[in-house]
Amino acid sequence: MGYVQCNLVILSQAHAFDFLLYCQRNPKACPVLEVTDPGSAEPRRIAPGADLRTDLARYTVWRDGRREPDRTDLHELWRDDLVAFLIGSGITFDQALERAGVPTDKDRWVLNTSLPTESAGRFAGPLVVTMRWLTPEQAIIATQVSARFPFNHGAPVHIGDPKAIGADLTRPLFGPPVEQVPANRIAVFWACGVTPQAAAEAAALDLLIAHAPAHSFVSDLLADRFCTP
Amino acid sequence: MGYVQCNLVILSQAHAFDFLLYCQRNPKACPVLEVTDPGSAEPRRIAPGADLRTDLARYTVWRDGRREPDRTDLHELWRDDLVAFLIGSGITFDQALERAGVPTDKDRWVLNTSLPTESAGRFAGPLVVTMRWLTPEQAIIATQVSARFPFNHGAPVHIGDPKAIGADLTRPLFGPPVEQVPANRIAVFWACGVTPQAAAEAAALDLLIAHAPAHSFVSDLLADRFCTP
Repeated sequence: MGYVQCNLVILSQAHAFDFLLYCQRNPKACPVLEVTDPGSAEPRRIAPGADLRTDLARYTVWRDGRREPDRTDLHELWRDDLVAFLIGSGITFDQALERAGVPTDKDRWVLNTSLPTESAGRFAGPLVVTMRWLTPEQAIIATQVSARFPFNHGAPVHIGDPKAIGADLTRPLFGPPVEQVPANRIAVFWACGVTPQAAAEAAALDLLIAHAPAHSFVSDLLADRFCTP
Repeated sequence: MGYVQCNLVILSQAHAFDFLLYCQRNPKACPVLEVTDPGSAEPRRIAPGADLRTDLARYTVWRDGRREPDRTDLHELWRDDLVAFLIGSGITFDQALERAGVPTDKDRWVLNTSLPTESAGRFAGPLVVTMRWLTPEQAIIATQVSARFPFNHGAPVHIGDPKAIGADLTRPLFGPPVEQVPANRIAVFWACGVTPQAAAEAAALDLLIAHAPAHSFVSDLLADRFCTP
């Protein structure tokens, strides 16, 4: 809690420009914090000395679009043409939300929507969102607090009716199925770092590696140093 | 005044990844607002319908690192592999500064510094800054106001002694030479959009096109829609 957390996407240099462009065109979902040089597994700006092949607890791997068993070490897969992208995560502002009285430990889902992202090359797909149920007062506070973290998804992209953005409550990507939003709560939706990972997965690249869900990269950078006033 | 203004850099697709990466690594100096698809001169996100070959008043052109005469139309030079980058400009927040009582029409310089930027591929070079002389009260207000525009250089990178960042007052890139900061003023320094243009110029590309100084791209987007709370 309180440290900058990052989603990880690793792909080959041949696809790196299109993927970086995809992120640039969808900055709320894909705030790029660092791109390593080809073949380098060290994120020397965010975490000098770290090794992205071993320093996450679990990795998901796809070859030609097919998922393989998860791994805990990437040395066997590593190649000189691989480029790693560290992308901001909304978990980064959990502590700031807690400090402001907004609970972060429950009632949270990752959902597909019907909103398209801006494509770049072969990367395209729907916006994926994180939904929380909050009281109206918490929703207003959470909007203000998260807006101060523009490099970790920032302010919500939607508030209120899930149907307005085609959010699929019946089949969450993360969290149990839900029937409807409780009467005394309002749904708040943030752009989610699963968006770029899903776009990369759909592109069926020769090799794609990402952090496994809930096993993102935790840096030593204080989240409060990455926010605006 | 009050509209999003953009610096323009145009180069070939072969160099586009390294240049986009250079911008990503130096976000305060190089906040990328849009990258066009190769061969397209329409910035369809920032200004749908605009034509970047004609809609700036003057362009500077370099071939193999040598400057050619300025142009007012790029049709003759246009190629299918050219990619245009629109980069945020500090002029975007001039109106917000004026509204807060900070004058923006004088005492402003563009200076080289001895601070290095993070390199990417062949793109490297010093940080270029915009310096203004302000009263201490104005300096504090200007820091708060500009911090609300993270996609247009944001908060200052330095305040006070020009020597601390190696700012060369004797040879400004823009503005008359100056001897020293007046006693009742404090120098405030912002990362400047000339930084990526200078890095691209130093890379001596086969073809490089940029807006001519003081002839940047003015969009119809309200600056206040691009700022944080």
